[in-house]
Amino acid sequence: MPYIPLNENLPGITGLLDYRTDTALPIRQLTQILLRGPSSLSEGERELIASVVSSGNECAFCTAAHTAIADLYLGDSSISESVKNNIDNAPVSEKMKALLTIASAVQKNGKLVTQAMVDAAKKEGATDLELHDTVLIAALFSLYNRYVDGLASVTPADPAFYNRLGHILLEKGYLPSENRYATL
Amino acid sequence: MPYIPLNENLPGITGLLDYRTDTALPIRQLTQILLRGPSSLSEGERELIASVVSSGNECAFCTAAHTAIADLYLGDSSISESVKNNIDNAPVSEKMKALLTIASAVQKNGKLVTQAMVDAAKKEGATDLELHDTVLIAALFSLYNRYVDGLASVTPADPAFYNRLGHILLEKGYLPSENRYATL
Repeated sequence: MPYIPLNENLPGITGLLDYRTDTALPIRQLTQILLRGPSSLSEGERELIASVVSSGNECAFCTAAHTAIADLYLGDSSISESVKNNIDNAPVSEKMKALLTIASAVQKNGKLVTQAMVDAAKKEGATDLELHDTVLIAALFSLYNRYVDGLASVTPADPAFYNRLGHILLEKGYLPSENRYATL
Repeated sequence: MPYIPLNENLPGITGLLDYRTDTALPIRQLTQILLRGPSSLSEGERELIASVVSSGNECAFCTAAHTAIADLYLGDSSISESVKNNIDNAPVSEKMKALLTIASAVQKNGKLVTQAMVDAAKKEGATDLELHDTVLIAALFSLYNRYVDGLASVTPADPAFYNRLGHILLEKGYLPSENRYATL
């Protein structure tokens, strides 16, 4: 039961973005730029960062939602599962392992990112912009996870919900659109 | 020494917002709406929330900056110091104590907000929108703190820097403007 009155047809973040649309707009725009805008990281790789951070914060809604989207982009659900369990053993590039390690540190506290972590990422070819975006995506999901759980928004139990949400976000992205969640 | 090349005349968040201006714009807009937009919480009260969260995350730059702005709005630096040390004993309203307690929980993890905390805030007159905004401000500063520290941006040691920054943000707000930091 959410702590404030949210549209009960809109679980998780969707009801919060509907509750206050003026604050929702820049949150959506930032997410669209970071996760869908031009980048040398693929959409699937960026959704993996979102999944790892949400998983670290134990935000069930965000973890399920962004895992679903990552899986759709990557075409293989074993990758996100593996990354959430143990980054070092996951079937992703060495560069992605280094960036996901940085994201995991940021999830706990920005101060936990070390020069050695940054050097390891650069050694594997990570650019300054990739480092920047990894930290900012991890910081953005630290916001989302707290927003969703801090107001006790509803977390659907049915995995099919997240699959439908994933398809909607894959097709339409993060910017506002009319009736986007009508079929959830 | 920051992990990515930032303008060395722009310490803390200022260099990061200058590094990638397309992601900076929605971050600035969200901050302007939440901290300066119409609200039944005063600007000083909202800056206290930012200070408490930044202090909890041990983000020295954000703590010093938002403490300076809160002090300018409140006209009394003992309030922010007191709030950061012990919310329950601070010279703020009972409603603000309850909202700052919620913000402190959000800073650690959204799941730590309890129905009892929310009931306590409502008993002191907190509205649903004030609860929403408190959680979202705390979530936003959880983003800022990680962005600033995760990329090791520079934290000036001189208290006069934060006083100048506070005056600029008091006068101009959080939206972008030309040469706003020229005198830092």
